Amino acid sequence: MAWFRQVSALKKQHHHINHPFSLLSYLSHSHYTTEAPPTQYAGLGPTRPEEKPRVVVLGTGWAGCRFMKGIDTNIYDVVCVSPRNHMVFTPLLASTCVGTLEFRSVAEPIGRIQPAISREPGSYFFLSKCTAIDIDNHMVHCQTFTDGVDTLDPWKFKISYDKLVIALGAQPSTFGIHGVEEHATFLREVYHAQEIRRKLLLNLMLSDMPGISEEEKRRLLHCVVVGGGPTGVEFSGELSDFIMKDVHERYSHVKDYIRVTLIEANDILSSFDDRLRQYATKQLTKSGVQLVRGIVKDVKSQKLILNDGTEVPYGLLVWSTGVGPSSLVNSLTIPKSPGGRIGVDEWLRVPSVQDVFSIGDCSGFLESTGKPTLPALAQVAERQGKYLAILLNKIGEAGGGHANSSNGMELGQPFVYRHLGSMATIGRYKALVDLRQNKESKGLSLAGFTSWFIWRSAYLTRVISWRNRFYVAINWLTTMVFGRDISRI
Amino acid sequence: MAWFRQVSALKKQHHHINHPFSLLSYLSHSHYTTEAPPTQYAGLGPTRPEEKPRVVVLGTGWAGCRFMKGIDTNIYDVVCVSPRNHMVFTPLLASTCVGTLEFRSVAEPIGRIQPAISREPGSYFFLSKCTAIDIDNHMVHCQTFTDGVDTLDPWKFKISYDKLVIALGAQPSTFGIHGVEEHATFLREVYHAQEIRRKLLLNLMLSDMPGISEEEKRRLLHCVVVGGGPTGVEFSGELSDFIMKDVHERYSHVKDYIRVTLIEANDILSSFDDRLRQYATKQLTKSGVQLVRGIVKDVKSQKLILNDGTEVPYGLLVWSTGVGPSSLVNSLTIPKSPGGRIGVDEWLRVPSVQDVFSIGDCSGFLESTGKPTLPALAQVAERQGKYLAILLNKIGEAGGGHANSSNGMELGQPFVYRHLGSMATIGRYKALVDLRQNKESKGLSLAGFTSWFIWRSAYLTRVISWRNRFYVAINWLTTMVFGRDISRI
Repeated sequence: MAWFRQVSALKKQHHHINHPFSLLSYLSHSHYTTEAPPTQYAGLGPTRPEEKPRVVVLGTGWAGCRFMKGIDTNIYDVVCVSPRNHMVFTPLLASTCVGTLEFRSVAEPIGRIQPAISREPGSYFFLSKCTAIDIDNHMVHCQTFTDGVDTLDPWKFKISYDKLVIALGAQPSTFGIHGVEEHATFLREVYHAQEIRRKLLLNLMLSDMPGISEEEKRRLLHCVVVGGGPTGVEFSGELSDFIMKDVHERYSHVKDYIRVTLIEANDILSSFDDRLRQYATKQLTKSGVQLVRGIVKDVKSQKLILNDGTEVPYGLLVWSTGVGPSSLVNSLTIPKSPGGRIGVDEWLRVPSVQDVFSIGDCSGFLESTGKPTLPALAQVAERQGKYLAILLNKIGEAGGGHANSSNGMELGQPFVYRHLGSMATIGRYKALVDLRQNKESKGLSLAGFTSWFIWRSAYLTRVISWRNRFYVAINWLTTMVFGRDISRI
Repeated sequence: MAWFRQVSALKKQHHHINHPFSLLSYLSHSHYTTEAPPTQYAGLGPTRPEEKPRVVVLGTGWAGCRFMKGIDTNIYDVVCVSPRNHMVFTPLLASTCVGTLEFRSVAEPIGRIQPAISREPGSYFFLSKCTAIDIDNHMVHCQTFTDGVDTLDPWKFKISYDKLVIALGAQPSTFGIHGVEEHATFLREVYHAQEIRRKLLLNLMLSDMPGISEEEKRRLLHCVVVGGGPTGVEFSGELSDFIMKDVHERYSHVKDYIRVTLIEANDILSSFDDRLRQYATKQLTKSGVQLVRGIVKDVKSQKLILNDGTEVPYGLLVWSTGVGPSSLVNSLTIPKSPGGRIGVDEWLRVPSVQDVFSIGDCSGFLESTGKPTLPALAQVAERQGKYLAILLNKIGEAGGGHANSSNGMELGQPFVYRHLGSMATIGRYKALVDLRQNKESKGLSLAGFTSWFIWRSAYLTRVISWRNRFYVAINWLTTMVFGRDISRI
């Protein structure tokens, strides 16, 4: 097998290099190098046998955060590396774009998910990007992520790990279509939702300026969503709710110009039951969402062009057509599963390399395991994070926490994914709940107000901290009583 | 008098130009020009006698918003021009920087303050900047404000007014000190508070990176506030609260490095009672705020330099030394009060020009009225807005709403300002309440927990909408129960 050859090559290299990291001087107490020479990296050196083993987590999505929540910090020191200091409760992100929920209600700081990370002397959160993984030396290379603020020059450092959990997630895929990155907005992060909200409110106000032509008004207030998966459908539903209630009341000058179009190459909500799909199509059409079957060929600053040559002028363009591997995952020379995801075995280990695990959207089962690559869903990531925390706790308890010390250990039950069903809201107090195990099997599926109620309740109990549960409930309540917030801040 | 000559010159010009605005074609029903030729401006033309008179408000601060709240929309159409679609509840802005309050809780959308603006066919809110005021032709020139978003090319238009209310506020003054604009953050708008919060949380995380030197850690976590007025003091107090509670608990690795320094050239809180000032000084020092008497000479990217040559390295620099006139106010050739503010008479009219009024921080009494220029306080602006709404309602009821139709009308009681006292919080559940009429007079002054309670209650009843009252109460409650939110979104 191709990947096996690569791994053997890596292993050979390992013996030649012979721990170059030991060139650095480490302070045993603080784990820190002080006054690292400018040509070398600073960092956290390898742990010593009498110290707690260190588990390094790359990423703060569903997988990484669920893992950190479950890991036993009496056994391990936890070091997390991510450009984002919070987890985003992605299923509710669409609701924040129109002000149904507040941004902060769907963001959970890491320090609240795993308090040890800001308290324990050997546990850290580093606001950084991982730039390379040195599997041979049990080490990751990182660089600070300041997002344009010039408070500190870029700072590079290395971290030695005993166990490495790669939970880097995925990135939105543009399928190489020209102009998407430049003109469209994705919907994966809080700042995406903020951008959508600001643009939507801006367009509502700009379309009311004196002398703007009818055509320009229609363009500014045309919201186009590309991609008919749950995110695209939920966002379209929220948007049509916002239009029917809040725009009609508060932007009455321009209410007749605003429209929502959802473009999808195939069926919307393709993973859902046929009956639910028809229900969703009917409901969305009823709420004024125009469903267009088409493939986007090109995106320009104020219009997009479909494969059949149709030009679609827009004021707001939201892109949610699916995800693909991030550039770091692409650059890794380790075995991959179909779709370019990091290949893992039944215990979520990267096979043939020591102490490396991968969970969430960035990973998939290797073909040799006979298991299918799982869908890039929050549900899968969350279950894998939970499983891996239990597995590593067990390994640590059995004394296998340190690097290269868990060889031949009995790992117990492999990871098995049981689909608990899919949910999606389609606006107007209506939602879909599909409780079937998979596309082919039979099972319960619900649509309408009851499932909308289930949908809200389910999310309310899943939003991680009590603080955010409380805020989400309060947000929903005030949206019902006072309407949505429309200040553009 | 100099200003009188300027006004006469303007008046002369007026007769020569003879309404160039009538060149444009107006649609009587929609107030809009359609298909305005590209070389001309679009806009709202003069109202006709059978239409409601139009009052144009420039600005959405305390003065403009209080005015819009009070104006009778059965008498007037209201058109508001501002680059901001919400009012900021400025006294609580300092609390949002550290997460005690949410940003949205202190922002009130204009449409909620005056619903007619988004409902009535002749009332509008334009997200634009006023670029010039043409007093002779009863007209303002505007340009759309899109803040970098390329959704629409800059769009220019003109609005004819029957009454004009200039409530443009003031802008932070830098006293010409080099580097302030570039490196410091002001604290007047919601985006300022957002910037401060993001920088503070970024510095807390960056200072925890492996290998950062002790000196650099100290610099990153040194928060310097310049200006000892209520804003500077309240922000310092909030910051020390945040450090003592939240940083100690959630950033325990770096808690010993964070410091707050407040730099002021004279006494802090100079408008307050001596006893209160001493109390504030003692309390701030006790909470760890270092008070430094000094004058800033120069600001560089990571340090500032005092007049005596002392270098002060900082990670976060907040500038709140006072305010001065904005560039538009500076450019107006109308009489000015001391300090470059728009001169007004006892009825808040700009004298010798027709139908123009000015309220809030951008205006001040003319010397000829014998009244002193009032301080740039929310309290003054709010009272003036309220007074002017009543005055214009009266004029409108008496049939003087249209342009040039209120000459010789009896205006009634002039505007009299009665100071209701000053309040400032200094952190740790402590605040100051100074109920004296002015600096020289005697009266009640309180300090401590009771006044903190009064401070909170007073603000809670003043935050304009029920929605925001509710949210501020909920924010305070959750901060007490769960601590402050530290996600950096």
